[in-house]
Amino acid sequence: MSPAAGETIGIGMVGHAFMGAVHSHAWRNVHRFFDTPLVPRLAVLGGRDETRAKAAAQKFGWAAVETDWRALIARDDVDLIDICTPGDSHAEIAIAALEAGKHVLCEKPMANTVAEAEAMAEAARKAGERGVRSMVAFNYRRVPALAHARKLVASGALGDIRHVRSVYLQDWLSDPKSPMSWRLNKDLAGSGALGDLGAHIVDAAQFVTGELITGVSALTNTFVHQRPDAAGGVGEVTVDDCALFIGRMTSGAVASFEATRYALGRKNSMRLEVNGSKASLAFDFESMNELSWYDGTEPPTEAGFRRILVTEPQHPYVGVWWPPGHLLGYEHTFTNEVADLLTAIGGGYHPEPSFDDGLRVQRVLGAVEESAAAGSGWQEV
Amino acid sequence: MSPAAGETIGIGMVGHAFMGAVHSHAWRNVHRFFDTPLVPRLAVLGGRDETRAKAAAQKFGWAAVETDWRALIARDDVDLIDICTPGDSHAEIAIAALEAGKHVLCEKPMANTVAEAEAMAEAARKAGERGVRSMVAFNYRRVPALAHARKLVASGALGDIRHVRSVYLQDWLSDPKSPMSWRLNKDLAGSGALGDLGAHIVDAAQFVTGELITGVSALTNTFVHQRPDAAGGVGEVTVDDCALFIGRMTSGAVASFEATRYALGRKNSMRLEVNGSKASLAFDFESMNELSWYDGTEPPTEAGFRRILVTEPQHPYVGVWWPPGHLLGYEHTFTNEVADLLTAIGGGYHPEPSFDDGLRVQRVLGAVEESAAAGSGWQEV
Amino acid sequence: MSPAAGETIGIGMVGHAFMGAVHSHAWRNVHRFFDTPLVPRLAVLGGRDETRAKAAAQKFGWAAVETDWRALIARDDVDLIDICTPGDSHAEIAIAALEAGKHVLCEKPMANTVAEAEAMAEAARKAGERGVRSMVAFNYRRVPALAHARKLVASGALGDIRHVRSVYLQDWLSDPKSPMSWRLNKDLAGSGALGDLGAHIVDAAQFVTGELITGVSALTNTFVHQRPDAAGGVGEVTVDDCALFIGRMTSGAVASFEATRYALGRKNSMRLEVNGSKASLAFDFESMNELSWYDGTEPPTEAGFRRILVTEPQHPYVGVWWPPGHLLGYEHTFTNEVADLLTAIGGGYHPEPSFDDGLRVQRVLGAVEESAAAGSGWQEV
Amino acid sequence: MSPAAGETIGIGMVGHAFMGAVHSHAWRNVHRFFDTPLVPRLAVLGGRDETRAKAAAQKFGWAAVETDWRALIARDDVDLIDICTPGDSHAEIAIAALEAGKHVLCEKPMANTVAEAEAMAEAARKAGERGVRSMVAFNYRRVPALAHARKLVASGALGDIRHVRSVYLQDWLSDPKSPMSWRLNKDLAGSGALGDLGAHIVDAAQFVTGELITGVSALTNTFVHQRPDAAGGVGEVTVDDCALFIGRMTSGAVASFEATRYALGRKNSMRLEVNGSKASLAFDFESMNELSWYDGTEPPTEAGFRRILVTEPQHPYVGVWWPPGHLLGYEHTFTNEVADLLTAIGGGYHPEPSFDDGLRVQRVLGAVEESAAAGSGWQEV
Repeated sequence: MSPAAGETIGIGMVGHAFMGAVHSHAWRNVHRFFDTPLVPRLAVLGGRDETRAKAAAQKFGWAAVETDWRALIARDDVDLIDICTPGDSHAEIAIAALEAGKHVLCEKPMANTVAEAEAMAEAARKAGERGVRSMVAFNYRRVPALAHARKLVASGALGDIRHVRSVYLQDWLSDPKSPMSWRLNKDLAGSGALGDLGAHIVDAAQFVTGELITGVSALTNTFVHQRPDAAGGVGEVTVDDCALFIGRMTSGAVASFEATRYALGRKNSMRLEVNGSKASLAFDFESMNELSWYDGTEPPTEAGFRRILVTEPQHPYVGVWWPPGHLLGYEHTFTNEVADLLTAIGGGYHPEPSFDDGLRVQRVLGAVEESAAAGSGWQEV
Repeated sequence: MSPAAGETIGIGMVGHAFMGAVHSHAWRNVHRFFDTPLVPRLAVLGGRDETRAKAAAQKFGWAAVETDWRALIARDDVDLIDICTPGDSHAEIAIAALEAGKHVLCEKPMANTVAEAEAMAEAARKAGERGVRSMVAFNYRRVPALAHARKLVASGALGDIRHVRSVYLQDWLSDPKSPMSWRLNKDLAGSGALGDLGAHIVDAAQFVTGELITGVSALTNTFVHQRPDAAGGVGEVTVDDCALFIGRMTSGAVASFEATRYALGRKNSMRLEVNGSKASLAFDFESMNELSWYDGTEPPTEAGFRRILVTEPQHPYVGVWWPPGHLLGYEHTFTNEVADLLTAIGGGYHPEPSFDDGLRVQRVLGAVEESAAAGSGWQEV
Repeated sequence: MSPAAGETIGIGMVGHAFMGAVHSHAWRNVHRFFDTPLVPRLAVLGGRDETRAKAAAQKFGWAAVETDWRALIARDDVDLIDICTPGDSHAEIAIAALEAGKHVLCEKPMANTVAEAEAMAEAARKAGERGVRSMVAFNYRRVPALAHARKLVASGALGDIRHVRSVYLQDWLSDPKSPMSWRLNKDLAGSGALGDLGAHIVDAAQFVTGELITGVSALTNTFVHQRPDAAGGVGEVTVDDCALFIGRMTSGAVASFEATRYALGRKNSMRLEVNGSKASLAFDFESMNELSWYDGTEPPTEAGFRRILVTEPQHPYVGVWWPPGHLLGYEHTFTNEVADLLTAIGGGYHPEPSFDDGLRVQRVLGAVEESAAAGSGWQEV
Repeated sequence: MSPAAGETIGIGMVGHAFMGAVHSHAWRNVHRFFDTPLVPRLAVLGGRDETRAKAAAQKFGWAAVETDWRALIARDDVDLIDICTPGDSHAEIAIAALEAGKHVLCEKPMANTVAEAEAMAEAARKAGERGVRSMVAFNYRRVPALAHARKLVASGALGDIRHVRSVYLQDWLSDPKSPMSWRLNKDLAGSGALGDLGAHIVDAAQFVTGELITGVSALTNTFVHQRPDAAGGVGEVTVDDCALFIGRMTSGAVASFEATRYALGRKNSMRLEVNGSKASLAFDFESMNELSWYDGTEPPTEAGFRRILVTEPQHPYVGVWWPPGHLLGYEHTFTNEVADLLTAIGGGYHPEPSFDDGLRVQRVLGAVEESAAAGSGWQEV
């Protein structure tokens, strides 16, 4: 039987802005490409403003709306809670959902503090014992090029890892007149570039190498302290504009990270390079269908960084999509992600990245904040 | 009122292979992003094998199936016929649909011969007088980078056009053991690389420059004449493996074209470069979110080909998708395409590319075939 | 004994403009890097204007000057004639030098007509029987990346050659107000982009593939017919501004060529791509230290065009220069070239490219001119 | 009068390995391209082993040799001492030369310790009062692209500088079996990747931005502690294999640096990116003829990183070389450098980078070492 006709799972999604749009697209389409064991029903969309929530539900294809996320969790037609809100509400919603026995997909950063993340991970472990699944939405793990990179490292093809360097460069704050946003308010966002962008590259570095960051020296900076707000006034920027840190990894590799919203001209340049003793790889999300690969075992006259178009049917996730050279885009990472989640739920195992994985990222972010606050000294994770 | 709740239009699609999958995706999702005046209903899927058609319908989300395309056209719940079959049936289906007063979207190449294309264009003109709309699915016109390129040319930013060079390079036939396919059978496909790939670059060159190709000298070649077929036997390749031609354009520009399935390592490299007296542009579908742009009016010390990430909200089509640097993929070109088609139908005007545009492309392909058959001499279009 | 102290060879160079500067540099420095069997003495510089010739001789390091090239050839202290004049004088000087028993290095294009090239090749063959050496200065053969490309093809690594595509794009005539030059005068230059740029890519294609072009269909165009001359008047452009041609090669491969001085933004983009049944390679002189290489025998998940930095000591010519990643520039191609020439003279064998090789190129250029003049029909070479 | 016939200056060079070869080339050729006020005489080459020194002198074109650098300094036919030895002898030779009233060109890193650098700078200041000139050979300042980058920053085109990120990546130690070398011996080399590569990127960052690094947090690592030596035994590696540091600059910009010899596949990738409030620039020595430039004042639909080929006659140093698109190589940076030095000597002013500039770099390197030694805490420069 085709998965399109299979057993269904009711989705309740909280939040309907940028992340809500892309998650809706994934839920609507995942079973049209993947043979998922469960077919998602877009059951309920949660949003505090009923008018806006209804408009979003109609636009994105949700059957109902709830203005109270507790009511949404409580509904019988909802089996999985997808959390697309700002970070300050993640812990509360996720823990409530897990305690109610609902599977949870939580956007990143998992939480605004290490303490919240610890509570969430604890709730996930307890719920997990009862078969409830939880996952953090580090969607870049589902970029085929990065999933393939992890496989290459895991195969031993890189040998010993010596260097990891990763940056996440955007530029939407370069203009000092760009307006205030919830993302610049520490109470809502927890941090600035660090949590928004740094979380992705910390997770990606740990995911691709299979190692953990063990300590960091860090600095953060805020270039523009006040910005015009929507009300015609001035908003105080209370988060970092950038975060730079160097560190060490489990195996003895050294690593360098930088997250910023002020790298003028870089729109979404999430880059990762890993140098091993046998091979190296490099990635840039602005060319997300490509993986740079250097095989150091080739004869020197033919060795060179090769541009692998990660669009072959044998590449991770690609087989269900289009022929070679027919590129995938940003939203495919989310469709791939929920395919993995549905497969784990249907298959009875825990999906990755788990809340424990999310906690490991949060602890690195916490160490970065502590180092930066304490004059850039070394901070163990 | 949100378009998602708007008036609907019943779609009947004939064919459910590669093109059927991507067209289905476009019809399912177009109104989730664009404010289209009409909401598509995936009414009927046409396929000769009922079992396979039903499986495809369930997978892709179609409400019903028909095994006879004439019956599909005749249904009251179908307002628009989407033709995704091999080229040999395009003319018959399209003309019947138009005569039945149904709008038509026809995959490229529009037809297998100039005569068929002429009959189709004639039918489209007649039906058009009664408000019936028709469009050829040259989806590369809906790549934001190429749509933007056309705007740049139309604005006069390039000055006089001197050179057009375009190649469409694939490599899936490089291996002599790759199996036989309908695409290698002249009776079904009409031609090989010429109609499949050459049609795209001829249309793109004419679309972006706003000019027509007026004559060509051409050569075609078949590198591998026999290939294993699915039955364990040997199939005769009766189409070209590649087509190369040089020509002139309306304004006096010169042009060079090459289409091949034997450019080992090039997966879907549809490239177009235009050199004008004031500026130049270049594009490669393997980096489809980018446009290379050289502004010759810059001071020489700062001039250079720039890589425009065509992901800004002001770029064609991009505003309904994701933030800057969050890439689009292959299927977006189809979603953008049906958005334009629905907008034209709802707005009461003829969409582009029209069947006349398709005929103009077909005439160039015809001239290429005639030149190649006659020893590569000059052939007026 | 170090070559720097070895037997010397007296050089007499005719012409002291752009080519004269770069040839002088090569003669001055070749033995400082290569272990050549002969050390060049910069004996005599030939130039019609004595004042300018003397200034050039002092600047470039020549010991004497002659205003009459016949006198220069006749000197006892001159063993090798290096011809750096416009194409209209190549045949006369080269034949006279060969008859006088002097070795000859002749800049490209070898001649302005096929008839001249035939006479030169005949003279070279006769002189060759007496141990006199002759060489055409197709310096791009001495780009390490192209020399390595030839080795890769010769090793069989590409398998059967299917496609050759080559362009040579410059833009210095894009501006209609760029001044008149001897290069735009057919009497002096023979042709325009065809002889100046097309000669290079025809030779490079034949050199790298080891095949010959057997026939072509061609078109040429002149975009700007009049240009301001140095005297404040108007000069008539009597050469082609661009040449486009398609053709076939010995083995059955197909090929496409384009030479132009109107590709705005392309400064010296001499490109060559060869697609074989097992591998492909690509080159662009604007990144002259790189060779793109696609090995089709790699697993599809790791295959990709790799950027070989052709700066390893094992690469052709590179061992005498700098460490990996320390780039070479334009003039190194000339230094490498004269190293090969001196080695052939010292070693008692004929260097390549020979005048026969030059004639083979000239015949292709001749066929291009005939095809273009006769309405772009097929012309056998 | 042509510079080639001008007043001469006697050069005495100490050391004749890699740096000696490239400096010799520069001294031999500089006046053949630049109109220098002084023509260098390659007077004396210094080397401890007379046989090897004589062979090098003949190969590179030096008139005489000395085995004792003190004797070399004392010679009347020597006006300028060019120091191409390992770093441990720089201070002693340079100070002796300056006290003897000889101009000095000193390879980088200027010294092995801050104390040595301070003594050298003091000697240079004293000698400078008597008209003696001194310069540190940070040759990357003479890459046309970086010299142009500095001009762009100085013009204000970047606005406020926010980010500097620079790496210098090589891979020649990736293989644990690569042999021991003086560069891995702290007594001779002072440090490893830090002094060899880090010195270049610290100087380049300060040169291009016109700012100083004010403090750093750093870590260094040695991946391979023992290597085979030439005698068949084992050598102890006593230097860093890599150095990573983050820091702040005078204006408040933040900066990130990494120097390593273990970035497999990167041959000589010296990169610098600067993000300002109005524009950004990026450079990679592996494409040394290019500068990436993003002009943030362009309309968003046309903005993009452009690849400026820094080969126009208006670009720094390029006018004396070849036409646009005809690339320069590694050794041109040295020829440009000695042209600047000769021009300063002839013009009666102090060249840059001065020994004070070198000291400023050395202090940053010193702070990096102190931070790394003290657990990666913050260290003011």
